[in-house]
Amino acid sequence: MSPDLKVIERLAEEISQARPSRLVLIHGGGSFGHPLAKRYSIKEGYKNNASQVLGFSETHQAMLALNKFVVDALIHCNIPAVAVSPSSSVVTKSDRIRTMMMEPIIKLLQIGFVPVLYGDAVLDFDRGFTILSGDQLTAYLATRLHANRIIIGFDEDGLHTKDPKEDSSSPLIKHITVEELKKMTKRIEKPKATDVTGGMLGKIIELIPAIENGIPALIVNATKPKRVYQALRGDSVIGTVIERG
Amino acid sequence: MSPDLKVIERLAEEISQARPSRLVLIHGGGSFGHPLAKRYSIKEGYKNNASQVLGFSETHQAMLALNKFVVDALIHCNIPAVAVSPSSSVVTKSDRIRTMMMEPIIKLLQIGFVPVLYGDAVLDFDRGFTILSGDQLTAYLATRLHANRIIIGFDEDGLHTKDPKEDSSSPLIKHITVEELKKMTKRIEKPKATDVTGGMLGKIIELIPAIENGIPALIVNATKPKRVYQALRGDSVIGTVIERG
Repeated sequence: MSPDLKVIERLAEEISQARPSRLVLIHGGGSFGHPLAKRYSIKEGYKNNASQVLGFSETHQAMLALNKFVVDALIHCNIPAVAVSPSSSVVTKSDRIRTMMMEPIIKLLQIGFVPVLYGDAVLDFDRGFTILSGDQLTAYLATRLHANRIIIGFDEDGLHTKDPKEDSSSPLIKHITVEELKKMTKRIEKPKATDVTGGMLGKIIELIPAIENGIPALIVNATKPKRVYQALRGDSVIGTVIERG
Repeated sequence: MSPDLKVIERLAEEISQARPSRLVLIHGGGSFGHPLAKRYSIKEGYKNNASQVLGFSETHQAMLALNKFVVDALIHCNIPAVAVSPSSSVVTKSDRIRTMMMEPIIKLLQIGFVPVLYGDAVLDFDRGFTILSGDQLTAYLATRLHANRIIIGFDEDGLHTKDPKEDSSSPLIKHITVEELKKMTKRIEKPKATDVTGGMLGKIIELIPAIENGIPALIVNATKPKRVYQALRGDSVIGTVIERG
């Protein structure tokens, strides 16, 4: 578990420079959450196993540790970021968000805070507990908060027709509708072939409900300087826009 | 901000040895939360002031930092502790808890986790934000969760007729009813005189609603080894019991 502090600090700086008026930040688990969640099979639900229960505790602590780096970097850039803990405010049912306490987030946004959430180990009505992905949380919050748009920071320039890591000449898709995207995903049959979009597909499938609610999603390369800044400003930026169509 | 790790670790060990079946832990702000909350006047509510807003962010981050020491120490003793963030799950109205997301805590207890909460900077429907004390949270949760009892760890043996720091011969009150306590507090007129009970009075006044709901409170000296252990076990222990009467 070692955070890429340079990237976190640069992104905090870009967010501070862009100063979007009403922003919710959501980050994933990275090297903090994923290995523990996997080791203790948290996503498979509670199996009446003491070591797994302790593993749930450890997974949430790891996510809090990563979240602390993110929020501290934002505060350092004078962004009034406030950590909002999904495991304290969400309960899922069979892995899907069933209930979420929205009042703190709504009040935070009213005052001008930037709520910062994350993929987390959460309680589940059917399965005891599970993993809630940052992607599911993003689509849920975008819809409930009537967001103008979703910006996804990724480690590729956007959506490609083929995995750019395997075929560097694969063209970037600059604009795609959900309809076109669904057709594209149907063509992908073999499980391993989900990698053709550079691992983006799983993320995007989670976002579809929000996009279908009329909230466009923009995928940009967060590892390249200024892309997130340009996206937040609404400037022209290299990336993929996904719209309802 | 420096935690007394020795005390935290000893208490985690005592909790682990006592193994109470259904435990919620709540800690205060100590040297982490209080100085920041005071510096930024968080308890006075939101005053449309950017530095105060950043101060709210910092206060919550400081509480998360202290909470991390507590939860990590518990996990180290094989207690499946899970941090529950009050600012993510509570909104107050004029400083009193108005709404709280109970489902995660109820689910955590069902599985056998130990939820760990704390005094926190929280959102407030009327005042923008405020400070929620661990004491108010304790009384609220004890009532909503139908707790058997409340155990308060303090730095004195219990409630004294006079401040034991000023008069070491002041006898310990072993048992007191809410009625007797109210009479006693009425005798205390001068503001400074609230110190006669060794600073306990403010804490106890917050607990009265829970005690009146039939949940006895036991005050023990957490700085002395084994007192918290004995209290959790239900053994005879030096301290003060407050009951409805």
